[in-house]
Amino acid sequence: MIRSALVIGSGLIGASAGLALRRLGVEVWLEDRDSEAVRIAEGRGAGRPGPPSSDPDLVLVAVPPAIAPSVIVGALRTYLDATVSDVVSTKAQLQHDVESLISDLHLVTRFVPGHPLAGREVSGAAAATPDLFADRVWALTPGALTDPARVRQVEEVVAALGAVAVVTTPESHDLAVALTSHTPQVVSSLVAAGLAPLAEAEVRLSGQGLRDVTRLASSDPALWTEILASNAGPVAEALDGLIDRLAAVRDGLRAGSAGAPAVRGALASGVEGARKVPGKHGARPVDYAVVPVVIADQPGELGRLVAAASATGVNLEDIRIEHAAGRPTGLVELSVRPESRERLRAGLAEGGWELRA
Amino acid sequence: MIRSALVIGSGLIGASAGLALRRLGVEVWLEDRDSEAVRIAEGRGAGRPGPPSSDPDLVLVAVPPAIAPSVIVGALRTYLDATVSDVVSTKAQLQHDVESLISDLHLVTRFVPGHPLAGREVSGAAAATPDLFADRVWALTPGALTDPARVRQVEEVVAALGAVAVVTTPESHDLAVALTSHTPQVVSSLVAAGLAPLAEAEVRLSGQGLRDVTRLASSDPALWTEILASNAGPVAEALDGLIDRLAAVRDGLRAGSAGAPAVRGALASGVEGARKVPGKHGARPVDYAVVPVVIADQPGELGRLVAAASATGVNLEDIRIEHAAGRPTGLVELSVRPESRERLRAGLAEGGWELRA
Repeated sequence: MIRSALVIGSGLIGASAGLALRRLGVEVWLEDRDSEAVRIAEGRGAGRPGPPSSDPDLVLVAVPPAIAPSVIVGALRTYLDATVSDVVSTKAQLQHDVESLISDLHLVTRFVPGHPLAGREVSGAAAATPDLFADRVWALTPGALTDPARVRQVEEVVAALGAVAVVTTPESHDLAVALTSHTPQVVSSLVAAGLAPLAEAEVRLSGQGLRDVTRLASSDPALWTEILASNAGPVAEALDGLIDRLAAVRDGLRAGSAGAPAVRGALASGVEGARKVPGKHGARPVDYAVVPVVIADQPGELGRLVAAASATGVNLEDIRIEHAAGRPTGLVELSVRPESRERLRAGLAEGGWELRA
Repeated sequence: MIRSALVIGSGLIGASAGLALRRLGVEVWLEDRDSEAVRIAEGRGAGRPGPPSSDPDLVLVAVPPAIAPSVIVGALRTYLDATVSDVVSTKAQLQHDVESLISDLHLVTRFVPGHPLAGREVSGAAAATPDLFADRVWALTPGALTDPARVRQVEEVVAALGAVAVVTTPESHDLAVALTSHTPQVVSSLVAAGLAPLAEAEVRLSGQGLRDVTRLASSDPALWTEILASNAGPVAEALDGLIDRLAAVRDGLRAGSAGAPAVRGALASGVEGARKVPGKHGARPVDYAVVPVVIADQPGELGRLVAAASATGVNLEDIRIEHAAGRPTGLVELSVRPESRERLRAGLAEGGWELRA
């Protein structure tokens, strides 16, 4: 395990990494163009201001993507024994930019690019927490020249921070996040944008799924324009695929009964794909049974319900609250393993809860 | 209020309507091609087998869409004073089919087409419940010839069943459900289908939104092929619009920085559209503050947490559970009104709960 680290960039991720490393007994130095950010991070206990008094084992570059390549190359040149890693959320372009700034490619054998999937809706050193990475996936995307021993070293650090390392190539990483993160964001925004012509009463004719599909659509457009631009090629490719599949369904619908097999096939592919989405404990999700319960919409009711459900000994896998239109009640959907359904229903019915079918 | 009703079709919706009407003191007769279904519905207390001993005030047709037009026309011809309504989930084609079966258009003045948004994952009379419609939206789509007094009569019945009537035209209804229900289903399926090329470890590089966007993708392909076919025109039109918007974003991404304004504009339209999605009490949703809490993944923990949160006096607006990859803990996101955030955080911290930033 590393004994010392330099964290460059004292935003949420850098300061949180500093806090987590300090908790592990690692000596941490902090640098940032903004000395106030370093001061806040130091005040939170994330480390002390650099430059380091001796060469660090690890340099973690946690600066904005635009300046990351030059900072990474600077670190590789300054600390000649250190492993250098980063947290930029798309990897192929970064790899290219770093390599193009270096004439001596031996330097990049010490570069282990990374991407912790650990964002939050808050930012800055003041929001830092050593638990930011706990149970999160942290991708590592070694290049062709990266020393495997350096990869193992960073894997060890990632595990010590409580995260789960996933090692892949920069290109596979970028296509994966295009499909699993960037495309869902675009789709969510554009489905929501399609509601524009509807009156409000008409939007209420929505299936329960509209809220799920459009949940991401409230995200910050400026931030997401930057994120999408940083992965423009793979996202455009993913959108090409999605557009093709949408056009096939549309054409199938216009073809009437002759098109039904195409429509059905597309939906069946969706069922297959959905099985890959991580559920509990990263395992394939099981199909949970849903127990809907009506509650009065007031403080304490939900707590009483969840306590009553727990008292039956059944583990709740998920909870969804549907607030009703214009009424002081809500419908709570408790998801449980299918074999636990009847036990939960019986226990709640006995306690006088109003169950739905 | 009506005093008598004939419910044709003893599936989940018909039998539930019978139960709810009986609870209101309405005399209910039941009919179904399947005498066993009538027997089950009668056993649940949904009414008694028809034919009616006297002309009913209301005939509710709750049969499969394919046979609905002929059953509706039969009812209009048999019961010459009755108001006739139905529960078919798309309305323009039905209206056309009914009118094309009738030479005396005066008959359709008594036809008040309807669509209760009250499906569940179960079906059949055995699953019937008088509360099926409580707090649900029930669309009514009178045609040009429908008698307004008949519409008011059905509105009264809908309200008595606990549902919220939304009156609109068949065409507006069908476009609305295409945009709010059918398009989200197609999009969810096709985003999930796009995951096919990814290895399972790569799918774990997903943002938190993937689960939301693909939640609907596990729906039954056969059922949804039928539903989409019943509204093929409006859905194809909605998909045209979505494809255009996706292509604009894709082209914007490929255009580099010159395309950024188009990408950002599309995302901003999504923020606008998302404001229309019904939130609590049918009002426009507010932006809730999220308080993330780490819990041990075992029975009772969630109940203890919700009870602790309720004890702070703060009303929980939503709950999401993120089960962690490969670890016996989960991250629970409690959504509350922004002004309640600090009170909840302080109360939970005091109780020793592990909060995240």
